[in-house]
Amino acid sequence: MKQSKKMADTVTIKSAQVFPPDTNYYGTLFGGKLMAHIDDVASISATRFARNPTVTASTDSVDFIRPIKVGDTVTLKAMVTHTGRSSMEVFVRVTSENLVTGEEEVAAISFLTFVAIDENGRPVEVGSVVPESEEETWLFQTAPGRAAYRKTRKDHSKELAAFFKKI
Amino acid sequence: MKQSKKMADTVTIKSAQVFPPDTNYYGTLFGGKLMAHIDDVASISATRFARNPTVTASTDSVDFIRPIKVGDTVTLKAMVTHTGRSSMEVFVRVTSENLVTGEEEVAAISFLTFVAIDENGRPVEVGSVVPESEEETWLFQTAPGRAAYRKTRKDHSKELAAFFKKI
Amino acid sequence: MKQSKKMADTVTIKSAQVFPPDTNYYGTLFGGKLMAHIDDVASISATRFARNPTVTASTDSVDFIRPIKVGDTVTLKAMVTHTGRSSMEVFVRVTSENLVTGEEEVAAISFLTFVAIDENGRPVEVGSVVPESEEETWLFQTAPGRAAYRKTRKDHSKELAAFFKKI
Amino acid sequence: MKQSKKMADTVTIKSAQVFPPDTNYYGTLFGGKLMAHIDDVASISATRFARNPTVTASTDSVDFIRPIKVGDTVTLKAMVTHTGRSSMEVFVRVTSENLVTGEEEVAAISFLTFVAIDENGRPVEVGSVVPESEEETWLFQTAPGRAAYRKTRKDHSKELAAFFKKI
Amino acid sequence: MKQSKKMADTVTIKSAQVFPPDTNYYGTLFGGKLMAHIDDVASISATRFARNPTVTASTDSVDFIRPIKVGDTVTLKAMVTHTGRSSMEVFVRVTSENLVTGEEEVAAISFLTFVAIDENGRPVEVGSVVPESEEETWLFQTAPGRAAYRKTRKDHSKELAAFFKKI
Amino acid sequence: MKQSKKMADTVTIKSAQVFPPDTNYYGTLFGGKLMAHIDDVASISATRFARNPTVTASTDSVDFIRPIKVGDTVTLKAMVTHTGRSSMEVFVRVTSENLVTGEEEVAAISFLTFVAIDENGRPVEVGSVVPESEEETWLFQTAPGRAAYRKTRKDHSKELAAFFKKI
Ligand SMILES: CC(C)(COP(=O)(O)OP(=O)(O)OC[C@H]1O[C@@H](n2cnc3c(N)ncnc32)[C@H](O)[C@@H]1OP(=O)(O)O)[C@@H](O)C(=O)NCCC(=O)NCCS
Ligand SMILES: CC(C)(COP(=O)(O)OP(=O)(O)OC[C@H]1O[C@@H](n2cnc3c(N)ncnc32)[C@H](O)[C@@H]1OP(=O)(O)O)[C@@H](O)C(=O)NCCC(=O)NCCS
Ligand SMILES: CC(C)(COP(=O)(O)OP(=O)(O)OC[C@H]1O[C@@H](n2cnc3c(N)ncnc32)[C@H](O)[C@@H]1OP(=O)(O)O)[C@@H](O)C(=O)NCCC(=O)NCCS
Ligand SMILES: CC(C)(COP(=O)(O)OP(=O)(O)OC[C@H]1O[C@@H](n2cnc3c(N)ncnc32)[C@H](O)[C@@H]1OP(=O)(O)O)[C@@H](O)C(=O)NCCC(=O)NCCS
Repeated sequence: MKQSKKMADTVTIKSAQVFPPDTNYYGTLFGGKLMAHIDDVASISATRFARNPTVTASTDSVDFIRPIKVGDTVTLKAMVTHTGRSSMEVFVRVTSENLVTGEEEVAAISFLTFVAIDENGRPVEVGSVVPESEEETWLFQTAPGRAAYRKTRKDHSKELAAFFKKI
Repeated sequence: MKQSKKMADTVTIKSAQVFPPDTNYYGTLFGGKLMAHIDDVASISATRFARNPTVTASTDSVDFIRPIKVGDTVTLKAMVTHTGRSSMEVFVRVTSENLVTGEEEVAAISFLTFVAIDENGRPVEVGSVVPESEEETWLFQTAPGRAAYRKTRKDHSKELAAFFKKI
Repeated sequence: MKQSKKMADTVTIKSAQVFPPDTNYYGTLFGGKLMAHIDDVASISATRFARNPTVTASTDSVDFIRPIKVGDTVTLKAMVTHTGRSSMEVFVRVTSENLVTGEEEVAAISFLTFVAIDENGRPVEVGSVVPESEEETWLFQTAPGRAAYRKTRKDHSKELAAFFKKI
Repeated sequence: MKQSKKMADTVTIKSAQVFPPDTNYYGTLFGGKLMAHIDDVASISATRFARNPTVTASTDSVDFIRPIKVGDTVTLKAMVTHTGRSSMEVFVRVTSENLVTGEEEVAAISFLTFVAIDENGRPVEVGSVVPESEEETWLFQTAPGRAAYRKTRKDHSKELAAFFKKI
Repeated sequence: MKQSKKMADTVTIKSAQVFPPDTNYYGTLFGGKLMAHIDDVASISATRFARNPTVTASTDSVDFIRPIKVGDTVTLKAMVTHTGRSSMEVFVRVTSENLVTGEEEVAAISFLTFVAIDENGRPVEVGSVVPESEEETWLFQTAPGRAAYRKTRKDHSKELAAFFKKI
Repeated sequence: MKQSKKMADTVTIKSAQVFPPDTNYYGTLFGGKLMAHIDDVASISATRFARNPTVTASTDSVDFIRPIKVGDTVTLKAMVTHTGRSSMEVFVRVTSENLVTGEEEVAAISFLTFVAIDENGRPVEVGSVVPESEEETWLFQTAPGRAAYRKTRKDHSKELAAFFKKI
């Protein structure tokens, strides 16, 4: 049987400077660039937890709460917050920091789902996570609700895909 | 007053080959890379429609329905499907194609929201879109429901951001 | 025998924003970056037409008719305009658009030749294209003249390569 | 009056390894990637000669004589071969080398035209080049012929651009 | 007067996957790519500490103790270990991890020096760091020796630069 | 037995323009970007000399003597200056040039060590180099001193790596 791990032991951190090529004409980070960073760090967290290759099954909605400016440093913190049989929910918190003033803000929050797969792309079993802090416990307990919602959404997505095949 | 445009006139298309650096060890595209492509093409569509600079306000969830292989060509089609005062909903459909066999599939579907802003980052008014085909009409009529849902979600995101400031 | 296709069915489109890293100190796109975009989209068009891997055999001269500015969006439209036994001529038209003003201009025009090859790099047979519109017909009818010119040029290039082996 | 320089003193060299992301599924370099390298090195040569900012006015045709494999090293040698009032013809020779076997081949040859411009984008006068070796003299003497041909071609390109505005 | 900070509070972490484009033909990371990562993370650590823009003054030698394979994840941990008037020594430890087996090794260790500068590029004063753990104390106490060695080395570098101006 | 080569025949040159994405907020090149260029060109020089794949064993310290500005062109010149059984010392000189004024300066100097390896990553024998000019002779004669110093340093690095395993 697969073992369990403390949620805190699944944390992966990535700090990176925001460079001009990643910004628009107001000097603020593109949403798409941030999405790529989010997927990167979440994928390390999921694979490290599962000790197995993983793929992104879905990305929940992301609200870009405030613009991130060129010269700021973004810090992404990813953590596995719940697991199913083969799937893992990963939570990513993005903070932006002005290194000179020290001002720091939460800029975005996102939940992603990764699935551990074998060499034929078939889902394989993963272990479980154990929350400890208040925030971790909140994330863990609210996860089944988010998972149920995703299931409905996925069915809807497949219908949409079939419908929009022709446009 | 701002003018209206036909929905079909807001279409932006981007075809691109999937290269090895964008893929994982099974040779399939990273979710994050696809998110960046989605944001790029949606942003062109929104800005071209608004005739005004825009920023991504949010990305709705994305379900990755099937893996996209190295050597495939992805084609993204973006279209403005509804507008508020300053916000625009953009729909993006992603198909992947094996150029040699001609096999083509819908790989993902996504809705994003862009906001037209002035030089101080303040929202400015945009025009409206007019649907014509059956699919366009469906997208247009179901948009207010998605917008209402996003409003609730955004409030929830802000609460979460406040809650997770300390972790 | 290989089938024929309508020229219009070989069209591939790519819209992309011009970002600062692709521009020089006047904020205009590097010629080399545009060449890379041109080769990308033309290669999708040729491979999709041939349903076979292809390589670039040559690029005809490109005149950069007007500068493309940072912030503009370039749209490339590629189309197979003629075929030989294993070679395809691909025409690419590049337009640049200021998304805010809506101003749009033809910025460059180019013809490339692709060759369909097998796994040993040997040329393989391709089908033919059928023009319909006035412009398509013009492109089709003037193609043999361009092909004849290329043949002379290629022989000359090989001589030059031999001559310049030592410099 | 602008001074003259020896042709050999305008030489710029760039050696670079061919990495996987720049190659197709046969592991050979994309034509478009080589075009970008050619433009880069030619632009250094022209600007260094003119001691003035320059832009690419046109790229003559390029024949890709033989495939360049991943792991090979390409060496580009650029040299100003003739000058007009504000324009410079730059010759680029591309050799590919297998560093382990030492095998080396001319893979492509190209002529580009650059124009020296002032801060308002207006052409400014450049000096002249003086050939010394046999190859340099050949390049210098055959340049006016190439320039005359380019003039005709450019007029033709502008007509084409006007014609293809609508397709 | 500038304040002091605990050494542990200057830590910056960056986890990143090793992708194919960053590796050679044995699938191991290029030394130069690792150097770029080292400089990035060290620069965030120095700027965050100084609350002032900084530039890299020098990089001490780096020994690449063992190869880092494609698919591994590298984790860089940077920390300010000593300060002068305007300079900061930053220590970077690089570990590589096979996410599937969990095997983890120290792959390289490096010391860099950054200088805090004002808008005219002139050095400005920085605060001091306070070590707490055994390792931190060792790093702090051995720093003056490394600084003295660097001084000699830099004078030697300048002489060398003058000597090699002509080759 | 492996042959010897003239030192001058091991020279590799790379000229490249400094683009905005490679520079910080003062418009000067990042140390890490220069390190990547240095490793690239040195690696071509070592592999071309050894006619065998090579890996970077170490990079000696690099002093960044003067900032390199956006718009400058850097020219790197690498040369094998000494050899052991399987190792090669490569010297790299970096000059920066303002192409418009023609001002040129030595910006950095570095020594790297590469090791020729077989398909199992095991060191293999390399030939020797023969210096001719005054500078080459100086580089050759002072190499054993640098090699001895590196040996001590490497042992120290391994100890440090063991010590810092836990932090
Ligand atoms: C993810 C994938 C392997 C799931 O395959 P599937 O046939 O749907 O497998 P199953 O129905 O057995 O589901 C496996 C698990 O994934 C979960 N899952 C599937 N789709 C999901 C979605 N869109 N969102 C969240 N979870 C999802 C299921 O709930 C199930 O979880 P559990 O094992 O914990 O109970 C498959 O859809 C896939 O390969 N998608 C493409 C992944 C990819 O390439 N991403 C990058 C795209 S650019
Ligand atoms: C988008 C942004 C300008 C909205 O500012 P705001 O103060 O919330 O403005 P308002 O409340 O007046 O809302 C303006 C419009 O945006 C819509 N909106 C705001 N947040 C939204 C969200 N998360 N999702 C969808 N729509 C949203 C509102 O509904 C409103 O629409 P309407 O004008 O059509 O009625 C602001 O949140 C922002 O700058 N975010 C960062 C954008 C960014 O940098 N993206 C990339 C991040 S890497
Ligand atoms: C293109 C290539 C396969 C042609 O090989 P070849 O030995 O010349 O083959 P052939 O003489 O049989 O010619 C095959 C076809 O290519 C055409 N062709 C060859 N060179 C050409 C050129 N420079 N321009 C246009 N067409 C050309 C021929 O006219 C012939 O056309 P057809 O079959 O329609 O009659 C070969 O030159 C090659 O591999 N070049 C390198 C391609 C490459 O790697 N490009 C990227 C470089 S970075
Ligand atoms: C370089 C490497 C092959 C040496 O392996 P090793 O087991 O130490 O081999 P040896 O002790 O037999 O040494 C072989 C040669 O390398 C030299 N060498 C080893 N480490 C060295 C170092 N850090 N600096 C300089 N020379 C070094 C030895 O002096 C010896 O030289 P010689 O054959 O000329 O006498 C090994 O350390 C390695 O694979 N390192 C990682 C390389 C890498 O991936 N670089 C990029 C990192 S991102």
